[in-house]
Amino acid sequence: MTLKRGKFITFEGVEGGGKSTQIQRLADWFREQGREVLVTKQPGGTAIGSQIRQTLLHVDHAHMEPWCEALLYLADRAQHVRQVIEPHLSRGVWVLCDRYQDSTVVYQGVARQVDSGLIDAIYQQAALGLKPDLTIILDLDVTTGVARARSRNVELQLSQAEGRFEEEDLSFHRAVREGFIQLAAREPHRVRLVDATEDAEHVFQLVRDACEAVVHV
Amino acid sequence: MTLKRGKFITFEGVEGGGKSTQIQRLADWFREQGREVLVTKQPGGTAIGSQIRQTLLHVDHAHMEPWCEALLYLADRAQHVRQVIEPHLSRGVWVLCDRYQDSTVVYQGVARQVDSGLIDAIYQQAALGLKPDLTIILDLDVTTGVARARSRNVELQLSQAEGRFEEEDLSFHRAVREGFIQLAAREPHRVRLVDATEDAEHVFQLVRDACEAVVHV
Repeated sequence: MTLKRGKFITFEGVEGGGKSTQIQRLADWFREQGREVLVTKQPGGTAIGSQIRQTLLHVDHAHMEPWCEALLYLADRAQHVRQVIEPHLSRGVWVLCDRYQDSTVVYQGVARQVDSGLIDAIYQQAALGLKPDLTIILDLDVTTGVARARSRNVELQLSQAEGRFEEEDLSFHRAVREGFIQLAAREPHRVRLVDATEDAEHVFQLVRDACEAVVHV
Repeated sequence: MTLKRGKFITFEGVEGGGKSTQIQRLADWFREQGREVLVTKQPGGTAIGSQIRQTLLHVDHAHMEPWCEALLYLADRAQHVRQVIEPHLSRGVWVLCDRYQDSTVVYQGVARQVDSGLIDAIYQQAALGLKPDLTIILDLDVTTGVARARSRNVELQLSQAEGRFEEEDLSFHRAVREGFIQLAAREPHRVRLVDATEDAEHVFQLVRDACEAVVHV
């Protein structure tokens, strides 16, 4: 019996787009179809990665150098891809991941202007250049998104521990949104832009449509 | 008045070579000459770097992927060079650093076989390619060195927090030692191999000789 390789689906977009909610719904939907699913995230999908996540997202680290930031994300990704994602995919598990390489390309490459050629070279070797079968970008107005993300952080008492990016100004978030829109235009077969403005139920229909179109569920 | 740029001196070598002791003595000697000196280390020379150091050295992280390890060292270095080392050098401070890029070249590049061309490309951009004026390698037999390092860790109760490399087997440490010896042969003007077998006083005379020869103190 040959085992069919699992599909790798990533979620991206500006803060507050509702990634966790949509990933959870999609995982439930796949499980109803009898699939084995792993829900995971970057940074923080391994024990080592959780420590890297704390270093990356803590609000006290506002003075982190762009290159330090980019390398920490890539270190987390190297560990996560090799230890968790690739082994799961190869034994047939579908992997849904909250943020991945496209976030590094956009946040560090586009918005912080870290050399994108070198970011890609590191990704190719350190994280095996593992490419998602489908990437869903939850797109919405950054003012709405950042406001949602900040109130969620307060609610979950995450503001100190994980609030560093929400503290960036709106021009940063606009550059991020623009970066994701351009990415979707560059890679239309893999990357789908989904309007995340409406309620979660409506957004989920769009997410499911994208999955049906691209990974043939 | 033009300020004379400080000198950048790094210490390298296998575990247990007595780097901290020698750095402290050298710092005292330079201070007696009226120089301003910064003693620092990698990883861990910044607040962000201390967190990266904990992630890197904890014994629970034995399954860390070589690429994850290399990128964490380089992230620490990017932050440290840009936030601390370069600003100090440019205002005339002499900087003594416990481990630097040569450790990554040797531990990750040689001993773990991570692509050394890519390690160098990252260093050139992320850490500005900042080159030491002098690198002193404290060289000794690895059996002696590792035994010294392990008993120091126990004494300082560091064995859980910082003992990961001391747990590697002797063939790993032999590859590291060999890597440093080859490095010294490749770059004789910058890199000096110092025999660290004898007592600290004797070793310090050799360290001082190397400084007088290379940085013209």
